[in-house]
Amino acid sequence: MAGRTTTLSINYSLYLILDSRFARGRALLDVAQAAVRGGVTVLQIREKHLTTRELVRAALELRAWAREAGVPFIINDRVDVALAVDADGVHLGPDDMALETARRILGHTRIIGVSAGTQDEAREAARGGADYIGVGAVYNTASKSDAGAPIGVDGFAAIARSVRIPAVAIGGLSVDNVAPVIMAGAAGVAVISAIVGAMDVERAANEMRSRIDAARHVATGSR
Amino acid sequence: MAGRTTTLSINYSLYLILDSRFARGRALLDVAQAAVRGGVTVLQIREKHLTTRELVRAALELRAWAREAGVPFIINDRVDVALAVDADGVHLGPDDMALETARRILGHTRIIGVSAGTQDEAREAARGGADYIGVGAVYNTASKSDAGAPIGVDGFAAIARSVRIPAVAIGGLSVDNVAPVIMAGAAGVAVISAIVGAMDVERAANEMRSRIDAARHVATGSR
Repeated sequence: MAGRTTTLSINYSLYLILDSRFARGRALLDVAQAAVRGGVTVLQIREKHLTTRELVRAALELRAWAREAGVPFIINDRVDVALAVDADGVHLGPDDMALETARRILGHTRIIGVSAGTQDEAREAARGGADYIGVGAVYNTASKSDAGAPIGVDGFAAIARSVRIPAVAIGGLSVDNVAPVIMAGAAGVAVISAIVGAMDVERAANEMRSRIDAARHVATGSR
Repeated sequence: MAGRTTTLSINYSLYLILDSRFARGRALLDVAQAAVRGGVTVLQIREKHLTTRELVRAALELRAWAREAGVPFIINDRVDVALAVDADGVHLGPDDMALETARRILGHTRIIGVSAGTQDEAREAARGGADYIGVGAVYNTASKSDAGAPIGVDGFAAIARSVRIPAVAIGGLSVDNVAPVIMAGAAGVAVISAIVGAMDVERAANEMRSRIDAARHVATGSR
């Protein structure tokens, strides 16, 4: 299990993916700050439409604040931008750099998360030294048009159980459907539009976090 | 002049930017091989439309062959991809990572080229440790829609003379207009469509290279 020195203390409960296309014209930093006040525990920036220069600028601003706030800050896809802004890590999807290559470049002090849609992909990511997996789409989602057919809670549970590293659920998650995913063993849930697109970001984050904590309390109590 | 340990031996005479959108459906490796047979001295891959995974795959193939062929291999924009494939360097345009940041990540053993459209930009690049500057657009060009008004041969000469690092001319260059640019002090010329888009890539490269060498011979002889 190479490369998992930084993750023991990460709380993946509520993992927010920042994408300005869902932000209703609000600045990502404002959205991030409100979201963390509401209970978000990890921030990722995913701004596929920006140039490298624009992405570095946006990430630098978030990075500085996230460090002050003590919130882990992850970059989607771009290993170079993670190094440029000294982010805590990267998240790699199927179109991004291979885990092995990213680990070689980033070393073992940064988090690398990998998307996994099957048990095979999850085990490959764990063997390759991923710090966590992002598993989904659990439910139907409008945020990612290429997410494929949803795997459901049972599908999520099977993948999460196939590895020892944390599994973060993604895809169509909301206050109304998050509890069963937590009870199925999710280390947390990743959301975009449910929080970034909410009229009241802090409140949306707070409600989501409350449901997550309550579901985890029930899950722990029932064991 | 930090960071210029690798460039003493680089021959910038004919610098080919590989962009598959101009390649008439041919594989970039085939284009690159024909171009180098014809006299291309530096290869850059600029595939803005690819995902990271696709770009790494394309760059790896070119990288392996370019190393065998002894041709410097540069990545446009993507510092992470340059590290992933162990490229000889990167070229940074105005939308790409800042020179200082890229140098910090890449260290001093890789080439960093920077686009410069004015004397101020050229001097800033040289002060920042760029190994060469790409200067243009010298002439009107169809390959880059955002290139701005052409600076002409006199504009190129003024910028090239403002720094001690090599200046590579770019923008609308062809066999018919390359000679005055070389005579104005260009270390070489960068082309895309004139070679990548040619029906006979090797011949196009060979004709261009002959004109460059001839112009340089005249320029040297007349001093």
